[in-house]
Amino acid sequence: MFEFALEAQHGAARAGVLQTPHGSVPTPVFAPVGTQATVKAVQPRELREMGATLILANTYHLYLRPGDALIADFGGLHAFMGWDGPLLTDSGGFQVFSLGEIRQIDSDGVTFRSHHDGSKHRFTPEKSIQIQHNLGADIIMAFDECPVPNERGAVEAALERTHRWLHRCLDEHLRSGDPDRQALFGIVQGGIFADLREQSVREVTSLDLPGYAIGGLAVGETKAQMYTTLELTTSLLPVNRPRYLMGVGSPEDLVHGVARGVDIFDCVLPTRIARNGAAFTRTGRINMRNLRYATDHDPIEPGCTCYACRTFSRGYVRHLVKAGEILGHQLLSLHNLHFLLTLMRELRAAIVDGTFDDYAAAFLATYEPVTGTQEGVNVPPVG
Amino acid sequence: MFEFALEAQHGAARAGVLQTPHGSVPTPVFAPVGTQATVKAVQPRELREMGATLILANTYHLYLRPGDALIADFGGLHAFMGWDGPLLTDSGGFQVFSLGEIRQIDSDGVTFRSHHDGSKHRFTPEKSIQIQHNLGADIIMAFDECPVPNERGAVEAALERTHRWLHRCLDEHLRSGDPDRQALFGIVQGGIFADLREQSVREVTSLDLPGYAIGGLAVGETKAQMYTTLELTTSLLPVNRPRYLMGVGSPEDLVHGVARGVDIFDCVLPTRIARNGAAFTRTGRINMRNLRYATDHDPIEPGCTCYACRTFSRGYVRHLVKAGEILGHQLLSLHNLHFLLTLMRELRAAIVDGTFDDYAAAFLATYEPVTGTQEGVNVPPVG
Repeated sequence: MFEFALEAQHGAARAGVLQTPHGSVPTPVFAPVGTQATVKAVQPRELREMGATLILANTYHLYLRPGDALIADFGGLHAFMGWDGPLLTDSGGFQVFSLGEIRQIDSDGVTFRSHHDGSKHRFTPEKSIQIQHNLGADIIMAFDECPVPNERGAVEAALERTHRWLHRCLDEHLRSGDPDRQALFGIVQGGIFADLREQSVREVTSLDLPGYAIGGLAVGETKAQMYTTLELTTSLLPVNRPRYLMGVGSPEDLVHGVARGVDIFDCVLPTRIARNGAAFTRTGRINMRNLRYATDHDPIEPGCTCYACRTFSRGYVRHLVKAGEILGHQLLSLHNLHFLLTLMRELRAAIVDGTFDDYAAAFLATYEPVTGTQEGVNVPPVG
Repeated sequence: MFEFALEAQHGAARAGVLQTPHGSVPTPVFAPVGTQATVKAVQPRELREMGATLILANTYHLYLRPGDALIADFGGLHAFMGWDGPLLTDSGGFQVFSLGEIRQIDSDGVTFRSHHDGSKHRFTPEKSIQIQHNLGADIIMAFDECPVPNERGAVEAALERTHRWLHRCLDEHLRSGDPDRQALFGIVQGGIFADLREQSVREVTSLDLPGYAIGGLAVGETKAQMYTTLELTTSLLPVNRPRYLMGVGSPEDLVHGVARGVDIFDCVLPTRIARNGAAFTRTGRINMRNLRYATDHDPIEPGCTCYACRTFSRGYVRHLVKAGEILGHQLLSLHNLHFLLTLMRELRAAIVDGTFDDYAAAFLATYEPVTGTQEGVNVPPVG
């Protein structure tokens, strides 16, 4: 189980397949985020229809509501949320550290207050793994600390803690879990410092885990720093294990990440911007509230094969968004997820065909990224 | 076109089929409401899946936003909203009269202010019909006045106006419309007064229209008064024309209405209560927020064949509702609409089988209606 086979490579870019107990995941892959056990405004059958193969859910949120023991009683997250495909849960660490004023870190774990009711809780590496066992996702993540990426002292301290905690996570997983049913991925930290990334890769990969995540990126560093760090880190990671870049999912970052050897991505961006009335297109992001779309008979993106584009005009979608209708959220969420999943399928096909460089260059030449915003990177997703 | 054929009768209850340019409608039928050109949180393909055959949209809302001329430019409401089945629009009268302080009625029409921006507008019988021509629904409604049902003086005045306006509506429809493409239904008023209902039926049916609505009910009178008035009115209406009871759609009222010879119903109730976390079941309405459902593995209603019940537990639906997730609205809307559509199909089958009395009695014996609330009746739907 959790076999990862590479099918083709083109430069650093890789096309592979990851086996899981709930099906195989062709990589590179984008995982839609279902924070509270639902991808917002999207049904599981629609995720299948658009070709989603891996869904992420958040341990912090589900621990607080409805509770991981309750979900276990329903047979785990797959059964609870009606998604029988592969699932991934994060460790809860990133959300808990994002709580700022209402959390306290010590060498053993983190004490925090619920953002719902202020009640007091504590996560340790063991606790995070136990919760993730209850949730039962195919891929589970080590409990790590994600510091500000360009403060060396803080990064060093977090690194030391992250590595100690990784051993505790693995021990707990081997003690009370089932590694044939759930794969524990380690997380490489080290901020933007090359020597710390090298040190982290060395320590994390010494445990020979079924996959490795690249943490601590897209949290405040520049895009150039992110790409450089990514390039270095993937060059050090073992070829035969999937690499997961956490919380990254703007179209341009997916292309740059795949070009640098990343296999797995996740991000709330496609569903979050949908709720603001924005849609991905090949030339950049458009906001459907714009008056210019009121009389526009074209679909959101001409040529797109998603349900929204097969069925409705921009004029209608604009009307829904302006009128505050839920169907507007639904259609834009469907379209944006379909857009990123299609992009990943095309990137994968280009790797297999040996045309990845051309495809990536052509995409980046026409796609205008959004700049000067924190959207598309790891903004604290609590609340 | 708009041929109405009766297939079976059982007492006053009737099973028929109404032909429209966009398909046939087996009656009795419940029409889901798509106020702003969308049934809230439900996709057109899902309406098809659950067997909806007739959808209602609101002239007042669509006139203000996005505008009926814009919808005409998209080829009419069917094309605009992606629903190629039969459509019905109301006249806008009920909404405009519900505006209270911000509307003024005169003998020629109604001047009102938009609930969006306070801008000034005027509806006349001609204007309402012109808007409905632009929208292009299969069934359009006469512009009438709906008074408080038990104030005789107000009802008499409204009746006189409604009849004068009906002639103007028909003249405008014949002048600028296409009666083969759109059927104009007249509306019987008269409050709870038998002699006024008789007078209204006489005047309205003298125009030999393709269908007749029963207006001015479920607006404040008692249920007993409503059923008595309904019984009288349908007994006076021509047998070979469909009867439409406007704005009524609680499960018990559907059964009582069908028993009294009503063919068409519409109501926002199923989608409105869905947004409050409530679900229809055969024993009454349940609120999914209730703690008792947290650990409940059953579907919303055991035996129900809707997507929500085929796929998810009450525990999961409760989690979605408590977490404020859009998917909760979606699933409860699907279930509640499916519940009413199934009820109507079963009522129809029972009429055809000659078992209607037994079916109706059995349903009413187990279904506990909600009392002491204005839900399920014509509450002003503006906003």
